[in-house]
Amino acid sequence: MYRVAVIGATGYAGQELIRILARHPGAELTIATASQTNSAARKLPALARLWDGEVRPLVLDDVAAEADVAFLALPESASAETAPVLLAKGLRVVDLSGAFRLRDGAARARWYPATGGLPDGVAYGLTEFERDHIRAARLVSNPGCYPTAALLSLVPLARAGLIAAGSDIIVDAKSGLSGAGKAPTERTHFSENHGSVAAYGAFGHRHTPEMEQALGRTITFVPHLVPLDRGILSSQYVRLAAGTTAAQVDAAFRSAYADAPFVRVTGTDLPEIKHVAWTNFCDVGWKVDEAGSRALIVSAIDNLVKGAAGSAVQNFNVMCDLDECAGLR
Amino acid sequence: MYRVAVIGATGYAGQELIRILARHPGAELTIATASQTNSAARKLPALARLWDGEVRPLVLDDVAAEADVAFLALPESASAETAPVLLAKGLRVVDLSGAFRLRDGAARARWYPATGGLPDGVAYGLTEFERDHIRAARLVSNPGCYPTAALLSLVPLARAGLIAAGSDIIVDAKSGLSGAGKAPTERTHFSENHGSVAAYGAFGHRHTPEMEQALGRTITFVPHLVPLDRGILSSQYVRLAAGTTAAQVDAAFRSAYADAPFVRVTGTDLPEIKHVAWTNFCDVGWKVDEAGSRALIVSAIDNLVKGAAGSAVQNFNVMCDLDECAGLR
Amino acid sequence: MYRVAVIGATGYAGQELIRILARHPGAELTIATASQTNSAARKLPALARLWDGEVRPLVLDDVAAEADVAFLALPESASAETAPVLLAKGLRVVDLSGAFRLRDGAARARWYPATGGLPDGVAYGLTEFERDHIRAARLVSNPGCYPTAALLSLVPLARAGLIAAGSDIIVDAKSGLSGAGKAPTERTHFSENHGSVAAYGAFGHRHTPEMEQALGRTITFVPHLVPLDRGILSSQYVRLAAGTTAAQVDAAFRSAYADAPFVRVTGTDLPEIKHVAWTNFCDVGWKVDEAGSRALIVSAIDNLVKGAAGSAVQNFNVMCDLDECAGLR
Amino acid sequence: MYRVAVIGATGYAGQELIRILARHPGAELTIATASQTNSAARKLPALARLWDGEVRPLVLDDVAAEADVAFLALPESASAETAPVLLAKGLRVVDLSGAFRLRDGAARARWYPATGGLPDGVAYGLTEFERDHIRAARLVSNPGCYPTAALLSLVPLARAGLIAAGSDIIVDAKSGLSGAGKAPTERTHFSENHGSVAAYGAFGHRHTPEMEQALGRTITFVPHLVPLDRGILSSQYVRLAAGTTAAQVDAAFRSAYADAPFVRVTGTDLPEIKHVAWTNFCDVGWKVDEAGSRALIVSAIDNLVKGAAGSAVQNFNVMCDLDECAGLR
Repeated sequence: MYRVAVIGATGYAGQELIRILARHPGAELTIATASQTNSAARKLPALARLWDGEVRPLVLDDVAAEADVAFLALPESASAETAPVLLAKGLRVVDLSGAFRLRDGAARARWYPATGGLPDGVAYGLTEFERDHIRAARLVSNPGCYPTAALLSLVPLARAGLIAAGSDIIVDAKSGLSGAGKAPTERTHFSENHGSVAAYGAFGHRHTPEMEQALGRTITFVPHLVPLDRGILSSQYVRLAAGTTAAQVDAAFRSAYADAPFVRVTGTDLPEIKHVAWTNFCDVGWKVDEAGSRALIVSAIDNLVKGAAGSAVQNFNVMCDLDECAGLR
Repeated sequence: MYRVAVIGATGYAGQELIRILARHPGAELTIATASQTNSAARKLPALARLWDGEVRPLVLDDVAAEADVAFLALPESASAETAPVLLAKGLRVVDLSGAFRLRDGAARARWYPATGGLPDGVAYGLTEFERDHIRAARLVSNPGCYPTAALLSLVPLARAGLIAAGSDIIVDAKSGLSGAGKAPTERTHFSENHGSVAAYGAFGHRHTPEMEQALGRTITFVPHLVPLDRGILSSQYVRLAAGTTAAQVDAAFRSAYADAPFVRVTGTDLPEIKHVAWTNFCDVGWKVDEAGSRALIVSAIDNLVKGAAGSAVQNFNVMCDLDECAGLR
Repeated sequence: MYRVAVIGATGYAGQELIRILARHPGAELTIATASQTNSAARKLPALARLWDGEVRPLVLDDVAAEADVAFLALPESASAETAPVLLAKGLRVVDLSGAFRLRDGAARARWYPATGGLPDGVAYGLTEFERDHIRAARLVSNPGCYPTAALLSLVPLARAGLIAAGSDIIVDAKSGLSGAGKAPTERTHFSENHGSVAAYGAFGHRHTPEMEQALGRTITFVPHLVPLDRGILSSQYVRLAAGTTAAQVDAAFRSAYADAPFVRVTGTDLPEIKHVAWTNFCDVGWKVDEAGSRALIVSAIDNLVKGAAGSAVQNFNVMCDLDECAGLR
Repeated sequence: MYRVAVIGATGYAGQELIRILARHPGAELTIATASQTNSAARKLPALARLWDGEVRPLVLDDVAAEADVAFLALPESASAETAPVLLAKGLRVVDLSGAFRLRDGAARARWYPATGGLPDGVAYGLTEFERDHIRAARLVSNPGCYPTAALLSLVPLARAGLIAAGSDIIVDAKSGLSGAGKAPTERTHFSENHGSVAAYGAFGHRHTPEMEQALGRTITFVPHLVPLDRGILSSQYVRLAAGTTAAQVDAAFRSAYADAPFVRVTGTDLPEIKHVAWTNFCDVGWKVDEAGSRALIVSAIDNLVKGAAGSAVQNFNVMCDLDECAGLR
């Protein structure tokens, strides 16, 4: 039984971590912290009876004393500062921020300037393709929500060599608002989003370099806010290598995910957010045009589960040699 | 042609005023102001081409120089301060806040403490029942959104003597989020409201004394936030006086609204928000139980139109002897 | 380990039963059936990997051969016909329809005319107040979603004698659309409900006699459709008996639910649908007016869980002497 | 004053036509018809007082006797049959279906097999680029909602030669549910769409050949359903021709729409559905990447207005030499 801590417990990802860890058979949630000094802000009415502990102010020595593994659900600048301290105190860490996702120093300096450097023993936590690194890691850097959906759609095709060399790769993602966090802003105001859709961050979102790092190619990534709470539907557009058949596309996905408990390959029945909401599944489906030259790959996740807390626990399970599914079904 | 000003132009009610007044055949929108010093915050992309004026900082002398009538879409403390100045400068005023709604000094001191006193020439702007007062007014105090829906449901029955003397009167209202204004708060955060409903303000909402003033009776009023943008559905529950028939209920509404261009009496087909959204209509319908002892009256309005900007313009029309419907169809 | 069947597996309540029972530690889901002969209509993509059995056409002998307990998620006329057969074959039954909820023959004949008579061993499944009857039952008749929310709000006050004798009792409920079932109709069409709210069934909804049976008093019940998928917020209005204090109200709820694992008493912090969605909790809170004469009681449930499948499993647990919470956390 | 008919008055586009035409200064709505024989189905509560005529069963001779111009808001097979008859009777027609959009006979045979052939005097009604043809037309074939949004984004760039020759052109559209019409289906059921997003029609939607006809190039078009009622946000991805500057992109749009009253060029402030809902505007904005090699163009329309009824009236205005904006502001 691992003693675990949730640092940043009152945000949406933090609450989801508590929901999952409170009933995880291999974990004991011993401490949850938040920066809010206001006790009202630390109340979590939805979690009453699921976890009735107290959300405490963050004291790193307390975390070190009471936990073996810490989940950080913090802004990346706070993670950049906190993770090295906890590692030095001997904890293992799963970090949900972007602070430690980019291996290239220049890219990191541009997109995550608060991160000093990568600690030893960092693994990128795209579980389905990184199990060996995760098993050996001290710090798992959990992928972004958008890269999770996009990469689970693209990596199998890229590895099978089915994407044409000169192809543009377009990732058009539609996300619910919980991905924007719990802090009220005009962008997340109810009346500004109900009945609306808006693109944002085109050519400038920091999840782009994360996708490009994993694929080694340029990606055109545009996220959109859609009027729902939980979920991402990500639509990927590629040119297929000459001579690719639909059967090869099918085989690429089925073999890539034959042993992946949380990726459901839906074939030409395209995924929908509704089917994955409140689960750790990523559903992946696709369509190939009649000529066999273009493919659309669509993936769906719950951004707070497979896109954040769920995959963090999945990574914790792998890192600690627990059943990969523990606590997640 | 009246020259009109919108004071508080960037809030939701203010934007709606601009939308209506920009195409009003009897009004020229000469000036619109906002307190925001940030010019980005004064951009109104939805109104481009409908009104391409500039939203300016508020300077009362400018307003007085450029307008005959001022619409105030301000917090009530700002209205309490601004309205008397504009009146003194000779303007007529339609105030959308609560500052001048309560005639009783003690009630006003409790619910709207910023209001010094009622200026001369104030009329309560429930148009359908106050046309004579409005015609003679210098300042029309526009009703609250909830009282508009509740009173248009209850006044005809009360005036016809059809509500039992000892009856409780319950007003259970369901409102979209735009009624909570444009300032982002946790209460108006998208993810806190999507997929949810919440009651608030039970036994303590300041629209209660406004309803009680109009009816002269105790009202139990509980508003609820429902996950939509525009609209209120208000459900009123009363005991009917002994011997009341459904035909009397029907007659009470039909005679009350025979000459009301913006109240649509729907009979036993109950109203729905969808039917009134983006219009100045209030739809009113009802059901009487088999025994003829209880009645449900349901009304629906768009809180930004009939519940705010639309009825303000309707009052402006009446006050200025224009067609009551001008600009509103 | 009980072998269980889900009859009516493709409706919303049926799918929710599968979701819960597939991971229930004391149940083995051996058979799920649907009337649809179209195999596409029997696909349940959201449940893939959670339960990968096949939804089969209903054959009662198969059910009897393969299951000890049957959950019926059927229209009430189908339940009325099916339940007696399964009982005769020795199964125990949890019925989610209204067929067996009303004890009074005349009321049943009016509201559920397809029901021939009540079988022996029927219990009304409002778990929190009926555990002894449920334990002894062969057939548990699961309560309606609206009565669940309303009665958990009202029974504690009624039993404590805190509702004034002559008080009207108003139940104004706001429900998501999943309660209207999976069959597409104009009433459940997306565009007719988005951005809207509508009352329906006033003075004529068959959940009214169910509430009245439990309380022994007349209830005014009006349900409303609100634009969300899962959840009911129910607002109850009562006059309190003379001399009632807020502390008595508080004590009535706290003592009624001291041992109820799925009722969370929230006191004067009123419940919200968001806090209970996807859980088997019913949250109950209240406000008493300053004079101590009126009370608002608000409850929130997920209509598909505590209002249907979850409480059905809770009743199964009680009936079979399992942990009441098994499979539900 | 033109006498106009709305054929297919109870669908969403038909209702919107009535809403607009009832207050159009140059049109008199003399007749509205629907195929529904059920009189309840012909009630339009939202339109009460805006237009209080009766929706009648369709009798073509009545239409010919009472109207000069007919708007057809029918399924394309009904339009294919009805339009030639009305033309032969001397009426001018604006058809909102796809029946007459494709000029190529083979394409038409594939996508709109009910269409016999194109009548003389057909114009494709993408107003902004077809005014001369529309002015001379007897039958205006109104564009599809998706092509409207996509083509207003792409035609200016294509005409200016700024799209690279070998570029893929991706159109990823997000549409509200009203575009799917008023007939209840599982696909348009509230609970299947709330909280969800789904792609559909990939590589097989009949709006694709319409886009390809206008641009003379292959288009990859994938529409998505998003949980809102009215509106389309369409995201277009192209490679720019070598050496293209952001200023050239800007100039292309500004010159294309210098005289277009209903296209608002928003530059690098990307459009949002909320800004155009309930209006006849199409907002168009764009982003160019740092290298100047890729562009995202985003457009937003209300699918029932600029995507259907509004542009139909705009076309009527042009065809009849009325002010292009008449009835639309």
